[in-house]
Amino acid sequence: MLKNSSEIDITRVTQSKIKDVDFENLTFGNVFTDHMLICDYKEGKWQKPIIKPYEPFLIDPSAKVFHYGQAIFEGMKAYKDENDDVWLFRPDQNLDRFNKSAIRLAMPEISEHIFIDGLKTLVDMERDWVKKGLGNTLYIRPFMIAIGSGVIAQPSTQYRFMIILSPARSYYSGEVKVTIAEHFSRAANGGIGAAKAAGNYSAQFYPQKLAQEQGFQQIIWTDDATHTKLEEAGTMNVFFRINDTIYTAPVSERILDGVTRKSLIELAKREGIKVEERSVLVDELVVAAKDGSLKEIFGAGTAAVVSPIVGFQYKETYYELPKTEDSIALQLKDKLTKIQYKLAEDTFGWTVKI
Amino acid sequence: MLKNSSEIDITRVTQSKIKDVDFENLTFGNVFTDHMLICDYKEGKWQKPIIKPYEPFLIDPSAKVFHYGQAIFEGMKAYKDENDDVWLFRPDQNLDRFNKSAIRLAMPEISEHIFIDGLKTLVDMERDWVKKGLGNTLYIRPFMIAIGSGVIAQPSTQYRFMIILSPARSYYSGEVKVTIAEHFSRAANGGIGAAKAAGNYSAQFYPQKLAQEQGFQQIIWTDDATHTKLEEAGTMNVFFRINDTIYTAPVSERILDGVTRKSLIELAKREGIKVEERSVLVDELVVAAKDGSLKEIFGAGTAAVVSPIVGFQYKETYYELPKTEDSIALQLKDKLTKIQYKLAEDTFGWTVKI
Ligand SMILES: Cc1ncc(COP(=O)(O)O)c(C=O)c1O
Ligand SMILES: Cc1ncc(COP(=O)(O)O)c(C=O)c1O
Repeated sequence: MLKNSSEIDITRVTQSKIKDVDFENLTFGNVFTDHMLICDYKEGKWQKPIIKPYEPFLIDPSAKVFHYGQAIFEGMKAYKDENDDVWLFRPDQNLDRFNKSAIRLAMPEISEHIFIDGLKTLVDMERDWVKKGLGNTLYIRPFMIAIGSGVIAQPSTQYRFMIILSPARSYYSGEVKVTIAEHFSRAANGGIGAAKAAGNYSAQFYPQKLAQEQGFQQIIWTDDATHTKLEEAGTMNVFFRINDTIYTAPVSERILDGVTRKSLIELAKREGIKVEERSVLVDELVVAAKDGSLKEIFGAGTAAVVSPIVGFQYKETYYELPKTEDSIALQLKDKLTKIQYKLAEDTFGWTVKI
Repeated sequence: MLKNSSEIDITRVTQSKIKDVDFENLTFGNVFTDHMLICDYKEGKWQKPIIKPYEPFLIDPSAKVFHYGQAIFEGMKAYKDENDDVWLFRPDQNLDRFNKSAIRLAMPEISEHIFIDGLKTLVDMERDWVKKGLGNTLYIRPFMIAIGSGVIAQPSTQYRFMIILSPARSYYSGEVKVTIAEHFSRAANGGIGAAKAAGNYSAQFYPQKLAQEQGFQQIIWTDDATHTKLEEAGTMNVFFRINDTIYTAPVSERILDGVTRKSLIELAKREGIKVEERSVLVDELVVAAKDGSLKEIFGAGTAAVVSPIVGFQYKETYYELPKTEDSIALQLKDKLTKIQYKLAEDTFGWTVKI
């Protein structure tokens, strides 16, 4: 935690808005807690962070974030256990990825002190917003934007790091059908696909809209050069179960190194489930769907945790997956969730108490 | 022009800051005029535009532009002729490209009425900021950002269109050496490279920083799949003169359809200069550099107009271009500039009076 006044300046709301929030009917990412953390970077260094009431802030119309897209973020969650203790899940991984994103976008790296301790201090103030019970979480959104002004296409010299918090229930609902990208793509070789950069997401909205109009909730992206390798989905890495092995694309410049992905891989290994990190080819998937060896496809990401996919479309043909009794997706989801909520022993040391 | 109060709401500054501006020593994109135009999109439609003093505005920390990068822009210029008339150059092309960018980023298109008439109304108010004389311009930056709140990765339902103006002198100075991209890239097949999207620029900053550290001002991007085709530079399309033909990459999903590029092509054709729109291969360039048939390389874009390049690096070898007496780059630049400043007859009908 950061010490008030020496390490951080804290201004509290006069009245919490928590009483107005309907925690049973939250839609993802719409409601924010009372406070936010702000830390500005200027003259080559990070200034003293502040925590203050969540509210709009002033920014110049020529701020570089608006024109040149220097903006990165993270997505993580806090969980409350049965003893009212609040836990983070592998926050070191998010810090690490945040700084990798920062480097790729020519933005300044941030210290563990500001990112992790700042986050703990903020979440600690908002404990009441973290509700007990499986599926209830506090979604944590650290992000950094270029606030320096001037419409010349050069990196900014001023940045703002912020953390905002949003209480959440489970993210996806309903059956998820996907379509496999045949033309559009989300990342280039030598591009920024491995960074959690704002610009990567807007690139997906239009293809996603087209997919949704056809009845598909998500797109599975393929490599942009050949469209033969299965990569990942909008905000999830993707796993394919063929017979009893699960496959997921190796992380690369084009693919986000997901915390859920890597945790599921470690969990699967511990459970004796065969896992291979290698590119699954579209053709291979189609063959496996036809001969029945394709048992499951599932997305993995912080927001949805594990999201089973019921079928995929490729070249106008829709392939429905078989119903499985022994879903590896659900088994892994269960193991992971229990660790996150402290309902099972965390032998990996992934959970961090606030 | 838009009529005040019925078509636009105009609030003027009480005192202009123009007297404080040193027009002889402007650095690009740092000084803004007194007023800006704002038009918001909500509930499925564009609202009445306003013109008001240039100043910071309030925005929610969860605004989608910060998290998912829905942000597009245009770059154009106003020129003052010897009679104190102010002219735009092919503004229809910018509107057209802006709306193509909007579609690709799942943002709403804007009408000619708001974009062109709004721009004319604003520039007309700021006539004094457009200085006479070759090289003096008023740089115009229309842009659109997603201002809707909420950290779910979905297109926003609220947007803000703005126009800001910055007086400018010529953009580049000094000799421009470039390096050819061997690893990094700016655009994917099926990506957003053809859109003037903010996210495309931040992707280039880190590779550009590395290039600058090696003494190269710009990178010439190659296709991300094979790195064999020469594409474009940071904010410029690129032309190669081999013997007496000029070549430039065809526009594609990966390449911005530059207004300067297309104008130079038309001008060259009129002047009887051979032009081919086809991909020049890196190997071809190296061969041409070695056998002396490579005469010129130049960038083309609104900011720099035409930017001659003195040499390029590829695979650790630097190839210096010969000095030319009869530079096609400078010849075309001269023709184009004279049209823009109304010093030569505009047979194309490119210039639009305000
Ligand atoms: C593009 C992309 N892939 C995968 C993921 C999954 O990463 P994580 O498990 O760290 O949330 C995310 C983030 O949510 C993402 O944005
Ligand atoms: C990536 C890119 N290429 C080329 C150009 C040149 O386009 P224009 O001539 O319309 O300014 C620009 C814009 O300045 C650009 O951003």
